[in-house]
Amino acid sequence: MKDRLKGVYSVLPTPFNSAEEIDIESLKRVIDLYIHAGVNGLTASGVTSETARLNDAERMHMIDTVMAHVNKRVPVVIGTSTEGLHTCVALSKKAKESGAAAVMISPPRMLKLNSDAVIKHFRSVADAIDIPIIIQDYPPVSGFTIEPLLLVHIAQEVPAVCAIKLEDPPTPYKIALVLEKAKSLSINIFGGLGGTYLLEELMAGATGTMTGFAIPEILVRVVHLFQSGEKQQAADYFYRNVAIMRFEFQESIGMAIRKEILRRRGAIDIALTRPPGSSLDTSTQKALDSILYWFQQNEPTFHFIK
Amino acid sequence: MKDRLKGVYSVLPTPFNSAEEIDIESLKRVIDLYIHAGVNGLTASGVTSETARLNDAERMHMIDTVMAHVNKRVPVVIGTSTEGLHTCVALSKKAKESGAAAVMISPPRMLKLNSDAVIKHFRSVADAIDIPIIIQDYPPVSGFTIEPLLLVHIAQEVPAVCAIKLEDPPTPYKIALVLEKAKSLSINIFGGLGGTYLLEELMAGATGTMTGFAIPEILVRVVHLFQSGEKQQAADYFYRNVAIMRFEFQESIGMAIRKEILRRRGAIDIALTRPPGSSLDTSTQKALDSILYWFQQNEPTFHFIK
Amino acid sequence: MKDRLKGVYSVLPTPFNSAEEIDIESLKRVIDLYIHAGVNGLTASGVTSETARLNDAERMHMIDTVMAHVNKRVPVVIGTSTEGLHTCVALSKKAKESGAAAVMISPPRMLKLNSDAVIKHFRSVADAIDIPIIIQDYPPVSGFTIEPLLLVHIAQEVPAVCAIKLEDPPTPYKIALVLEKAKSLSINIFGGLGGTYLLEELMAGATGTMTGFAIPEILVRVVHLFQSGEKQQAADYFYRNVAIMRFEFQESIGMAIRKEILRRRGAIDIALTRPPGSSLDTSTQKALDSILYWFQQNEPTFHFIK
Amino acid sequence: MKDRLKGVYSVLPTPFNSAEEIDIESLKRVIDLYIHAGVNGLTASGVTSETARLNDAERMHMIDTVMAHVNKRVPVVIGTSTEGLHTCVALSKKAKESGAAAVMISPPRMLKLNSDAVIKHFRSVADAIDIPIIIQDYPPVSGFTIEPLLLVHIAQEVPAVCAIKLEDPPTPYKIALVLEKAKSLSINIFGGLGGTYLLEELMAGATGTMTGFAIPEILVRVVHLFQSGEKQQAADYFYRNVAIMRFEFQESIGMAIRKEILRRRGAIDIALTRPPGSSLDTSTQKALDSILYWFQQNEPTFHFIK
Repeated sequence: MKDRLKGVYSVLPTPFNSAEEIDIESLKRVIDLYIHAGVNGLTASGVTSETARLNDAERMHMIDTVMAHVNKRVPVVIGTSTEGLHTCVALSKKAKESGAAAVMISPPRMLKLNSDAVIKHFRSVADAIDIPIIIQDYPPVSGFTIEPLLLVHIAQEVPAVCAIKLEDPPTPYKIALVLEKAKSLSINIFGGLGGTYLLEELMAGATGTMTGFAIPEILVRVVHLFQSGEKQQAADYFYRNVAIMRFEFQESIGMAIRKEILRRRGAIDIALTRPPGSSLDTSTQKALDSILYWFQQNEPTFHFIK
Repeated sequence: MKDRLKGVYSVLPTPFNSAEEIDIESLKRVIDLYIHAGVNGLTASGVTSETARLNDAERMHMIDTVMAHVNKRVPVVIGTSTEGLHTCVALSKKAKESGAAAVMISPPRMLKLNSDAVIKHFRSVADAIDIPIIIQDYPPVSGFTIEPLLLVHIAQEVPAVCAIKLEDPPTPYKIALVLEKAKSLSINIFGGLGGTYLLEELMAGATGTMTGFAIPEILVRVVHLFQSGEKQQAADYFYRNVAIMRFEFQESIGMAIRKEILRRRGAIDIALTRPPGSSLDTSTQKALDSILYWFQQNEPTFHFIK
Repeated sequence: MKDRLKGVYSVLPTPFNSAEEIDIESLKRVIDLYIHAGVNGLTASGVTSETARLNDAERMHMIDTVMAHVNKRVPVVIGTSTEGLHTCVALSKKAKESGAAAVMISPPRMLKLNSDAVIKHFRSVADAIDIPIIIQDYPPVSGFTIEPLLLVHIAQEVPAVCAIKLEDPPTPYKIALVLEKAKSLSINIFGGLGGTYLLEELMAGATGTMTGFAIPEILVRVVHLFQSGEKQQAADYFYRNVAIMRFEFQESIGMAIRKEILRRRGAIDIALTRPPGSSLDTSTQKALDSILYWFQQNEPTFHFIK
Repeated sequence: MKDRLKGVYSVLPTPFNSAEEIDIESLKRVIDLYIHAGVNGLTASGVTSETARLNDAERMHMIDTVMAHVNKRVPVVIGTSTEGLHTCVALSKKAKESGAAAVMISPPRMLKLNSDAVIKHFRSVADAIDIPIIIQDYPPVSGFTIEPLLLVHIAQEVPAVCAIKLEDPPTPYKIALVLEKAKSLSINIFGGLGGTYLLEELMAGATGTMTGFAIPEILVRVVHLFQSGEKQQAADYFYRNVAIMRFEFQESIGMAIRKEILRRRGAIDIALTRPPGSSLDTSTQKALDSILYWFQQNEPTFHFIK
């Protein structure tokens, strides 16, 4: 499996209709768009999927729908983070049954979490299930910083851990540090953060990126060029286009921008996030108009509706 | 209803058996113990109930069991906080149907939450349901500090808000500040924090306390003496016994201590928290032995098994 | 003065020699480089100046040196934030005596800081000194988020407040929100964050940017084009070059990158930050080589030494 | 020296007069009061000394005054934490020259601080000076949690580290954990947190406490009884009196309460903290009246003026 956990994995959003209920048809169109864009895999039930605003039944419904619609065209990673070990194990078992390629798990959120408890959490999950585990390293959500040595330590102690989704900036620097400390131990590291440092993450040794950026074609091309040895071209293409990844990846309103781009790409019906998620203000709408206009001038194969 | 939202409300724990499944019989015994202790009401599905480590079905099972076993002997407040408006409204409706006296709601956890979003959240919930709302003001869980003026502002804007569970230390100081800014607006304020500042909270104007302290008899007596005008006796009794509230209320291991006290009181079978919750180390066990021994010397009517 | 508080203000670094002592000659070269780049003003004693790692005498020495060397060629803003009112007032008085155009002040760092204390701080400073004040809104350093309404409120209550350096992302969104709430009240808002959202900040109504980005020529050109009405050209130029601002502006290692760019521009002798500040690792060095090479291909008037 | 770093060390406040200038005569009276109370040592220039609100000259003036007035009656620990290595080394050298028994140092405050940088900081300080070092483990100020294993690791790597002032709650639990991991390595651990868990800290293996509680006589008696083998008496006396430590140790207003108690004990002239420090509100004043009245009934040898 490990061989397939590389390249570009797109994290799926959860589209909603105007009644704030899950919009399955839009979800299917996003899946098709991403697969058509050439991604190596998909990730369901992640942070960007607004999983925290779904109830358990909705979360399972999303997972089932994704698995059925993807229908093995690409591998699917399923996020199974919860705040307790018990619920995380139960969800991870369901993920395996549904055909997930791997589960992605964040340290459980808890006041005064510590290294020993984090190691124990990953070990306990691994003992209870039989499926590869990806560590999600995203401190804003878990409230815990996993230092490089601890990441390596978990990977050593828990053989089921096959990869890290590393989103603790500066990501290129931390990726280099983890790989240096990992020595002979082989760990696949995905960057993230909307692709804003994708080139630098690859240069530092990342095997790919796992993120929800709404135009994964750009990520796919950068990774493809880079991994084909065309590093200079990868760099040129990345530098020329990173303005748009940077724009999408804004704190708190990023998800609303992402959904609006997907709407303009014809994938989802309305760009709604569940409250208290933000909606787009006029100022951000105008700035989006501006950058999409510029992007399309340079990349005329892309189309955006208004 | 507002008249009944005062005095001592005990927040119920979720007892587990050795398989980490909910232990209903222990839960019933805790309910009976607390009602027998003279509490004015109970709170289900709170932070101290380890709600974050239950799945949705378990959470509803807990609520149903509590309502059935309490059987209207005392009013029951139900915590319905979730990270999204949609799920919070749905859960609050179920809470109402199940007979809750009020729902208790925390600001939704979100990166970059702000005052406007918090007001909107409470207003939107109030628009969708028809039941009194208690604001839970506990920053470590919500990640957001509700300043005194904002608390008053929400209470003014959202008439369904009938009380605040105020646990942002220093609580006596903040209670005084909120009441001063509230002016003619009447708001019931519960203190909390394990009862560690109960007397000072009452002196500052609190109408009671809502907390999970395992010996609520002490809280009941302090509140009773204080509200009967025997303030000096309330103070003496509180100062003499607060050592034990202080001991129980320790960060990260407080829940484990609380369950162990309930076990020693014969209410729950085993003092287990769901991982990653802590279990008691030897050092804390010995310190608990010491303080319970001392407490029982002064209060011989209490009994603790080993 | 307010009329001059706009455009590009470059925040000065503190260059050190190999003994970690302040390197005055390098500082002078940076000042000359920035003025030659066409900046509208300079800012001394800011966060990026590693002020937290200087003692009081060094901080004053820096201020005096900057004022003497600038010699009124451009206006100079001086950061006078400290953790107490008393020391902030004293330093602000010295800043005025030394000829500062304005002082820049952050909310005082304190556990449990609140809105009332922040307003009081700015009012008290303004009562004690006679010089325009710029509010620094950078939560990672102050530990306090100043919501848009509070920013407007301070500006209304404290007439000496003439501008805001707004660095609480998403900055374009917050700038638009502040200006909307400010209504008729005129406030100059500087963006920041290394220039990574400069275009969007200008579109949202910013009057300029105040940041330490090591190639301010880019910022100057964007602002110039935008404010001359050539908005489309400003956008094109910005989007094409923002890759480099994005690269420099990385958490924790950004200052080391910035100094290394200044070294390669011939301005400072060695790219050293005072410990515990980071130094550049090999991975980041290579990524910097890559992006500077690309940048120079597009902008051949710039030169970088190795 | 290590033998003397045990028992009760009182951290000195910085008394101010009505002009907010340092009040030397009040400081001397506090020193005499504490020495007369039987403390084993004093600590100058700590967090509770409001050091963050002093300028460098004031900080040195405080240190010099303390050393001169103590005049070797008891050992004095001097806090030399700053945000940079350079300034910390310089201040630590001055502390040694002035006759300090040890310096107390916190991890340097910095965004994204990590274990490696913390170890390096203590090692670098130790390399530059020749005086015992006490690690201050107080996360609210440093922003960094030093896990038990890291504390032990620093103590192993840096022989100059002779003690820890451990104030990361739950302190008794963490003290037990550190000592368990330290194995044969001997480390003196001081508790703190206003003495609110002194008994439990001693039971867990602490060699004493270092805190600013304004009635150190209580701490001295608890430690004396405990270390003489009269553990039951120590516990009884502690439990009976901890209500007052608990009251003083309230977030954000604790320093104002502490100074007011010292004023009522006749030691300092006015109970002023430098802004933005809090002053006592009416509600807290009344609560203080109540608990001091109760305390004096039980301990008639203490006197408090109004």
